[in-house]
Amino acid sequence: MLTSDVHRTYRDRPVLVTGGLGFLGSNLVITLVNAGARVMIVDSSVAGCGANPFNLDPVCGKVEVFPCDIGDPEVDRPLSEADIIFNLAGEVSHIHSMLFPERDLRINTLAQLKFLEACRREAPGRRVVYASTRQVYGAPQYLPVDEQHPVAPVDFNGVHECATAHYHHLLTRLNCIDAVVLRFTNVYGPRMAIKLPCQGVLSVFLRKAVRGEPIILYGDGTQVRDPLHVSDACEALLRAGAVSNPEQRTLNVGGRTPVTLLGIANELQAQRCLPATEFVPFPAERARIDIGNYRSDSSACESTLGWLPVTDLCKGLRETLKYYDEHVTRYLEIGRPCSCPLSHS
Amino acid sequence: MLTSDVHRTYRDRPVLVTGGLGFLGSNLVITLVNAGARVMIVDSSVAGCGANPFNLDPVCGKVEVFPCDIGDPEVDRPLSEADIIFNLAGEVSHIHSMLFPERDLRINTLAQLKFLEACRREAPGRRVVYASTRQVYGAPQYLPVDEQHPVAPVDFNGVHECATAHYHHLLTRLNCIDAVVLRFTNVYGPRMAIKLPCQGVLSVFLRKAVRGEPIILYGDGTQVRDPLHVSDACEALLRAGAVSNPEQRTLNVGGRTPVTLLGIANELQAQRCLPATEFVPFPAERARIDIGNYRSDSSACESTLGWLPVTDLCKGLRETLKYYDEHVTRYLEIGRPCSCPLSHS
Repeated sequence: MLTSDVHRTYRDRPVLVTGGLGFLGSNLVITLVNAGARVMIVDSSVAGCGANPFNLDPVCGKVEVFPCDIGDPEVDRPLSEADIIFNLAGEVSHIHSMLFPERDLRINTLAQLKFLEACRREAPGRRVVYASTRQVYGAPQYLPVDEQHPVAPVDFNGVHECATAHYHHLLTRLNCIDAVVLRFTNVYGPRMAIKLPCQGVLSVFLRKAVRGEPIILYGDGTQVRDPLHVSDACEALLRAGAVSNPEQRTLNVGGRTPVTLLGIANELQAQRCLPATEFVPFPAERARIDIGNYRSDSSACESTLGWLPVTDLCKGLRETLKYYDEHVTRYLEIGRPCSCPLSHS
Repeated sequence: MLTSDVHRTYRDRPVLVTGGLGFLGSNLVITLVNAGARVMIVDSSVAGCGANPFNLDPVCGKVEVFPCDIGDPEVDRPLSEADIIFNLAGEVSHIHSMLFPERDLRINTLAQLKFLEACRREAPGRRVVYASTRQVYGAPQYLPVDEQHPVAPVDFNGVHECATAHYHHLLTRLNCIDAVVLRFTNVYGPRMAIKLPCQGVLSVFLRKAVRGEPIILYGDGTQVRDPLHVSDACEALLRAGAVSNPEQRTLNVGGRTPVTLLGIANELQAQRCLPATEFVPFPAERARIDIGNYRSDSSACESTLGWLPVTDLCKGLRETLKYYDEHVTRYLEIGRPCSCPLSHS
């Protein structure tokens, strides 16, 4: 299916996006509004997660925002009106989950359980696209990682995302909802919460680059990743929302080209003339949840959704930096040190 | 290792059993006391689960019972004293989990998360044996089911057991605890809570047999199971508590011989001269969480633990019925209909 045809299927359709104020959520909302959808958003702006009202500046006045938790009864009304549900709400920080496992369970599993109970009641049979993560696989036993790879999360966030993915599949088997679960690799692009710590390596690299500071690499930087530009991630989400009777309901969504963290650092350094990259030993608390090299096998996603990532890393990083340059005060408070908002709560 | 040698390793050792008032837990406690262990028990007697103080009658005065939830701070003291922890607490009912999924999440995952946090603090590096279930596999894609079989739970109980097994493995990888997870098939034997509904097919069959009522089969009764006598289950637990550096930390524990539900019904009918077995259509709420045929591949358990089930089904059922005959008032209130205690709460 052509991208233009996929987007056309959303014209005038009521769609709900949970976590719509966050990084991936807001980019999806903008894409959906541009495709002509009537977008409703549920987002409770949980402290420490990536919600930022400015993310929705381009669609201001064109969307309806419900400022409630996905586990609250207030989700019933938007759910009952939605044709398609994009379930992107959640805490993505692996580090936060290790510091506060019960908080992660509440946000990523208990609230989701309540939300899915509301889905089966208010939106029976509706398509629900759940944004999960490659983190559930843990340290890869082989590369590239396909969907048959054993699940062995190395942090609480992975355990809880995995449980919530099971909820989606369980309720699909029971014909309560019609779910597709996407397991995203490292997604980057405009609207990441680069101010926050613990949002992943690409967020940290971008923060350094925007500030003109040297990038710091743990170890030798040879760990492989397959970064995915958020526009490609949104395209996968739109296709997952539109596909009929998918043969496979768990799909890996990975980037176009594997690259080392050093390679990403070098690209950012070159684009921004940053000071020399610094190499430091792996901090213990990071080493114990590091997964080594990772590369997705996205062939099932490609065949099921007719999807292919198209954004080249150099171009993607350049556009991302341009975005933050234009809106730097909205994403960084220059001169103030970053700190973990959870550590003060 | 000979059984006698395994049991000898427990002599005078402080051991904690969570869920020690329940079916599997109490049988394990009795086995441990007979082996000379100093047994502590944590059990909060959650309504609707299988706790029954009479289960511990044979070891009355020989064990220390802490009547608290595994998520309570009161577990700290017994944990700090225990050499080995058998983590058997939990709700096993698949049906209850479908009726009250949040309750199941609280009991089987949230409380376990708190308990394991206490383990890493009070009993760092200690062996923790977690009793999980074959239910995590869902409907088998092949038989017999080994540990590489995909995990695809067909009920909330399976999702939550799976998450808690991941917790154990995660904390083992982080060197916080030293866990082994056993995935039990249908376990039967003395001290099952046969009074309660929703405790599994063998519990229902035994209740009928003890009452002299006809057994009722859903469908044609040709579904295969591999029932495991509780004494064999306890032997696997003791070995899992004692083994050093196991090569594999998730082990299926299945019964000796596959048998159909009709075969089990026929055996009980013959032993008790029951009225003819009745066949009824599968009730909808059962059909949607039925897994079809199931048979464990326990070869990894056999090689890792040197374990083999030894109890023949006919003998096991006979001894089980004898136990209930001797203590019928402790397990059934004759003449009163069974009802779900949760439905009244």
